[in-house]
Amino acid sequence: MKPRYLYLLVYMLSVTLVSAQPVDRGTLDQYIRLNEKKWLKQYLDFVSIPNLAVDRIGIQRNAGFIMDLMKESGIESVQLLEADQLNVPPAIYGQVKVPNAKQTIVFYAHYDGQPVDATQWLPGWQPFEPLIIDSAPIKKFTVIKDYMSYSNLDANWRITGRGSADDKVGIYAIIRAYASLKKLGISPTVNIIFFFEGEEEAGSPHLAEILKRHAPLLKSDGWIICDGPIHPSGRPVVYLGVRGDAGMELTVYGSNRPLHSGHYGNWAPNPAHLLSRLLASMKDDDGRVLIKGFYDQVTPLTEQEKSALENVPNVDKELQEAYGFIRSENPSRSLSSSLLLPSLNINGIQSAATGKLASNIIPSIATATLDLRLVAGVDYQKQQQLVEDHIRAQGYYITRSAPSDAERLRYNKIIQVKLKSGYNAQRTPLQHPFAQQVTEAIQSATRSALVVMPSMGGSLPLYIFEKYANALPIVVPIANFDNNQHAENENLRLGNLWTGIVEMAGLMRMKQ
Amino acid sequence: MKPRYLYLLVYMLSVTLVSAQPVDRGTLDQYIRLNEKKWLKQYLDFVSIPNLAVDRIGIQRNAGFIMDLMKESGIESVQLLEADQLNVPPAIYGQVKVPNAKQTIVFYAHYDGQPVDATQWLPGWQPFEPLIIDSAPIKKFTVIKDYMSYSNLDANWRITGRGSADDKVGIYAIIRAYASLKKLGISPTVNIIFFFEGEEEAGSPHLAEILKRHAPLLKSDGWIICDGPIHPSGRPVVYLGVRGDAGMELTVYGSNRPLHSGHYGNWAPNPAHLLSRLLASMKDDDGRVLIKGFYDQVTPLTEQEKSALENVPNVDKELQEAYGFIRSENPSRSLSSSLLLPSLNINGIQSAATGKLASNIIPSIATATLDLRLVAGVDYQKQQQLVEDHIRAQGYYITRSAPSDAERLRYNKIIQVKLKSGYNAQRTPLQHPFAQQVTEAIQSATRSALVVMPSMGGSLPLYIFEKYANALPIVVPIANFDNNQHAENENLRLGNLWTGIVEMAGLMRMKQ
Repeated sequence: MKPRYLYLLVYMLSVTLVSAQPVDRGTLDQYIRLNEKKWLKQYLDFVSIPNLAVDRIGIQRNAGFIMDLMKESGIESVQLLEADQLNVPPAIYGQVKVPNAKQTIVFYAHYDGQPVDATQWLPGWQPFEPLIIDSAPIKKFTVIKDYMSYSNLDANWRITGRGSADDKVGIYAIIRAYASLKKLGISPTVNIIFFFEGEEEAGSPHLAEILKRHAPLLKSDGWIICDGPIHPSGRPVVYLGVRGDAGMELTVYGSNRPLHSGHYGNWAPNPAHLLSRLLASMKDDDGRVLIKGFYDQVTPLTEQEKSALENVPNVDKELQEAYGFIRSENPSRSLSSSLLLPSLNINGIQSAATGKLASNIIPSIATATLDLRLVAGVDYQKQQQLVEDHIRAQGYYITRSAPSDAERLRYNKIIQVKLKSGYNAQRTPLQHPFAQQVTEAIQSATRSALVVMPSMGGSLPLYIFEKYANALPIVVPIANFDNNQHAENENLRLGNLWTGIVEMAGLMRMKQ
Repeated sequence: MKPRYLYLLVYMLSVTLVSAQPVDRGTLDQYIRLNEKKWLKQYLDFVSIPNLAVDRIGIQRNAGFIMDLMKESGIESVQLLEADQLNVPPAIYGQVKVPNAKQTIVFYAHYDGQPVDATQWLPGWQPFEPLIIDSAPIKKFTVIKDYMSYSNLDANWRITGRGSADDKVGIYAIIRAYASLKKLGISPTVNIIFFFEGEEEAGSPHLAEILKRHAPLLKSDGWIICDGPIHPSGRPVVYLGVRGDAGMELTVYGSNRPLHSGHYGNWAPNPAHLLSRLLASMKDDDGRVLIKGFYDQVTPLTEQEKSALENVPNVDKELQEAYGFIRSENPSRSLSSSLLLPSLNINGIQSAATGKLASNIIPSIATATLDLRLVAGVDYQKQQQLVEDHIRAQGYYITRSAPSDAERLRYNKIIQVKLKSGYNAQRTPLQHPFAQQVTEAIQSATRSALVVMPSMGGSLPLYIFEKYANALPIVVPIANFDNNQHAENENLRLGNLWTGIVEMAGLMRMKQ
């Protein structure tokens, strides 16, 4: 952000609140400051409730907590949106009608968390017994035991616990933003729908169904998906889309049992070697996928998207240092531009054993799991098909299960390909009015320049919203970048909770 | 074998026994037939004694059984040859001096067995509770419960149990061969030393030491190594050498932690992909190793060796059918000729996970275990060096441990290479007098044409005998080819035990 614009923003924030003007940050900040200890305590209580999608009791307790908070905040029609089947974690619904509002915006977050392996967490830490620590739990940090005794809470403190960053912070910030506006007597500019999913981390298997089943309640002009981390630069970010995703599993067959590598080495086919050659044939030394047609379906970036991309801060060097490598797959391409291309990635390879378990054998099978990330324009089934065509062009016979004895004695090179279900990328054009409203609202609500990404590198089934709720989604993350998402020692930077509340409030006041 | 020669052999067998003439098969066969039930019972008792090299009690019990059998058979100086350290499974020694014998020949076998995973054995089977079954334990077979009630034992029956084929049959056949000659009043033509190792399956870690420590007892003109299976054609075989072996473990590094394949896919280096490319660069589609100089050190086959190789029955098609593949690594090369070349084989690959455990990540490391098999002329350390040179030529920085942070930020492509210890190939020239004596003796003792292999595909540390016992070794296997060596359901074909006795007796009467 240019200094001149920043000045303008500060000016705008200082003017008296009128409808469709940004929320006065000073007022909201002061209000947050006044309540931060109470809210922190409440948030710790929220994070303490186990939230695995498979844990029915935990899910019920979370839903109860959220619904109580919504009701206390003056949100109306608070209810569970159930799926057809029993025992599916329900979505939680609420709404706020605003007189004369022209649009209805859904605020989405999810209250379930990733599975946990408590043994991997730091000694003494429990995924559902949140702590407050004074910095990222990487090297040296201190546990803050008596936060109530501090005059102010430090924005750099962290709250630990599963769900602290992914994605209870979304739930809490959204509800707290509305509650704060109400307490401060500031009216939202749009009708608000609250929609909190309960099985996102399980892959949202019933989301489409819930959206269809409760369609009349969910009519809207756009969805704000509050999930994920902000930009590594520390600046707020909106993602106008996501990459699609489709998995494949390849298993190459050799002999029908492992053979002694002395008695048969040089003679029996080695599936680990065959698989290596096959995988090597798919990508060159600069990470370019060599599969015919792999990039052909890609919708080119618009001029606006290109320009947004140019304004994304380049944090590649810092990230590479943090992640301990100096050569990216294609050193001539930045991270943010790489994420706007389809990718073919090896998630894992397994053939017999290595290390102490290795033995002098020729393995009988070799397996690789691949994931294909897809961008706008690329159909996931077509993309899987291109990979299969490539495999066939390398001389392979493709089966859908382990080969029969007859197949083994009929084909030179045999591979089992499992096509996993997937979904396409989703992208809201930058020039779309909703995209403009969202970016402006967030930019107005925050002090640092907004990063606008045409697409996230990761995948979410956002196509579902477009397909089943008939509205465009835009992702507005608030968690800190280094939140250990999906992993052990998940944590939320406290300042991100407060900024999240401000951003969500700003969105509830988006220009009409 | 040509019919004319077979006729000659039958004639030779029918003549009266004189020194340096083959043992009369009729006499020996008849003697075996008379005693087979008693010996089978004794052999079952032997196989019942657990024989893992790490099981001190089991090893002691085996040694006791063997020494008793040796003493009963009239073998002299029966004793344990200990290593320097305590608790090393000792070798068992014995000798027979023959008046006027010009040569001393050592008969080697080992009494320890491979580790067992009893859960992998057929239901109800125990590795150390041998059974008698009527055919190979593959599809349909019947357990013979009352073998004593049969008038004759069927040569195709099998004895199950760990060690039944590898290598207690060697111990039993050697002792029983000498005992039989003695009972029949037939004198060996050579002085005999019996040497039974107790930790071959653990890699013979103290063999060299035992040979050095007891060198005066072990002075000889050659070693008969009775271990391994006969030729897949069912014909007897001698191996005049073995391939050497040297392992390597390669670990390619990417980022210092697994990264999300959506947020970083196309950008973060993928070690699984890098490793695939590296492995693919090492070998072409026809199994030819592309590493510079890989075949340069090979000692070419002599004319005699080439001629022996041409006479090896080609069982490739049958083996391929049994093992379920139709394309060998190099379809233009036979199995037996393949085994006379150095090989580079992938024993296993591991990078993150596949199948149900796979997740959408970019792995942080990828590991492959390789083994190099070596033939005459090839130095194992030089061969490892060539592989390293190749890896460096692909742009890799080689470390001997996990890279430091500083190394990670200094080198584009990083690999850890662990060089495992190994040993060179060993080969007794076919034209050597000892090779001639051995092949002639076995050919005379058996009814089917002998297969002479210049080298086994597998590896044994035979160089130790040449280096520390100052004598050439020749491998004379007797177990059936399909004995499930090292695996579950190990078994010995009964006929191979009897033939083994005949062959060992024949060797004890080799021409002087």
